[in-house]
Amino acid sequence: METLSTHKAHGGVQGVYRHASAATGTDMIFSVYVPPHAAGAKLPVLWYLSGLTCTHANVTDKGEYRRACAEQGVIFVAPDTSPRGEGVPDDEAYDFGQGAGFYVDATEAPWTSHFQMRDYIERELPELIAAEFPADLARQGITGHSMGGHGALTVALRNPGRFRSVSAFAPIVAPSVVPWGEKALAGYLGTDRAAWRRYDACALILDGARVPELLVDVGDADPFLHEQLRPELLQAACDAAHIPLTLRLQPGYDHSYYFVSSFLADHVAWHALRLKA
Amino acid sequence: METLSTHKAHGGVQGVYRHASAATGTDMIFSVYVPPHAAGAKLPVLWYLSGLTCTHANVTDKGEYRRACAEQGVIFVAPDTSPRGEGVPDDEAYDFGQGAGFYVDATEAPWTSHFQMRDYIERELPELIAAEFPADLARQGITGHSMGGHGALTVALRNPGRFRSVSAFAPIVAPSVVPWGEKALAGYLGTDRAAWRRYDACALILDGARVPELLVDVGDADPFLHEQLRPELLQAACDAAHIPLTLRLQPGYDHSYYFVSSFLADHVAWHALRLKA
Repeated sequence: METLSTHKAHGGVQGVYRHASAATGTDMIFSVYVPPHAAGAKLPVLWYLSGLTCTHANVTDKGEYRRACAEQGVIFVAPDTSPRGEGVPDDEAYDFGQGAGFYVDATEAPWTSHFQMRDYIERELPELIAAEFPADLARQGITGHSMGGHGALTVALRNPGRFRSVSAFAPIVAPSVVPWGEKALAGYLGTDRAAWRRYDACALILDGARVPELLVDVGDADPFLHEQLRPELLQAACDAAHIPLTLRLQPGYDHSYYFVSSFLADHVAWHALRLKA
Repeated sequence: METLSTHKAHGGVQGVYRHASAATGTDMIFSVYVPPHAAGAKLPVLWYLSGLTCTHANVTDKGEYRRACAEQGVIFVAPDTSPRGEGVPDDEAYDFGQGAGFYVDATEAPWTSHFQMRDYIERELPELIAAEFPADLARQGITGHSMGGHGALTVALRNPGRFRSVSAFAPIVAPSVVPWGEKALAGYLGTDRAAWRRYDACALILDGARVPELLVDVGDADPFLHEQLRPELLQAACDAAHIPLTLRLQPGYDHSYYFVSSFLADHVAWHALRLKA
């Protein structure tokens, strides 16, 4: 692992790092904020998965999470959203290819060789975080925005018991039935929709996957609310499965980081309450 | 004035605006955050002047001020650092020309025609803010970063009584005697150093200008600390003039927005205490 930059911030250290990923077959960049802590302490970890077009940098620059993480003593990890670089397949669209990995392990050519973001996020990067940072992986939470909200929900649902706390901002809750998701899942996984279900939060819940509870914020002025996000489908799935869902429709907020940053500190505190219980 | 964007954030509205400036003879872009407030209320205003290479966007994206401004009920105004565009003189260096207006009214060719940032910041933009936003200009504070810290200090010192509160982050306190300042002031104002004094915070204080008190934060890992910033010169000038200066050397912090954003909410609260007294 190579350190690209570190800056003191809110008493802790915001770093950006690069490593050679075996999962994606590329170099991958991610950011980690380590709050001030006692020497030798191991800290809970909050994962943040980003949305379409983003890298680690968007939330690192605009997320306004460091103060809350410093107050709560929580490590904040922000991975990239796909493999990148020359030799990595891409697509001209903003919602497919580089910057749009959808946190799946692709099975369709030409994406199989590098687009293994599920394996990267679920297995490889946690091992690196555990080895390189003062992280207590017995206390993990996960959140994310839009495509990354989809990522957070599905990673948590597929790995019961791993995360003590799960939340999301404007998540794509049912990619199998919305345009962004149908395009991405067909492209990476092929047309057999049975293979999509493990990458669809609502389908996972209907198929029996469970998390203890969920916190979801969505802006009611989000232009993607009704066509791509459809939080009512998550509400219905959680109701049927008796998963307690706190779904907050935030009045006047859109899909931008102005929305995320308005509530991310609140999510950090919500996770911390559960991670430190 | 044209609205380029607005987003709800922390209960208020973060906007970006453009107007045709008579002072600079160009279009100018600035950002304003208006916190949640009662209809008809007039709110105190905190000005933030940015540093070399910056536009309004740097602090708007990375400053982490909105939560504090929402809590305190303070409007936050972030102007650009120079005129820009085709037909506006420029220089290849990052520290002169576009992005580096140094908050002076240039008197040297070719800069005179557009580089009138003192007039823009001191006269024209406040008139626009008063006309277009729920701003109470009887309650103004000012701060800034680096070149913008220089701007904040000198604007306040030249306009006694206008600002109830003045602070700065890593300011250039004595541009007449440091490389950034000597280059810029010679370029914009010519080689007669007497003309530089009204744009030098330490010289203004030595020449009799006063502010009620000052708050200044500087990182002790700031790479510009000893050559360009030299806060000890401000300390000496304030000591001689009996201006109460709270100078905080922040351990481990550098010159970046990771430093600014770590303490900007604290400055907002410090200003609000004085603006709402």
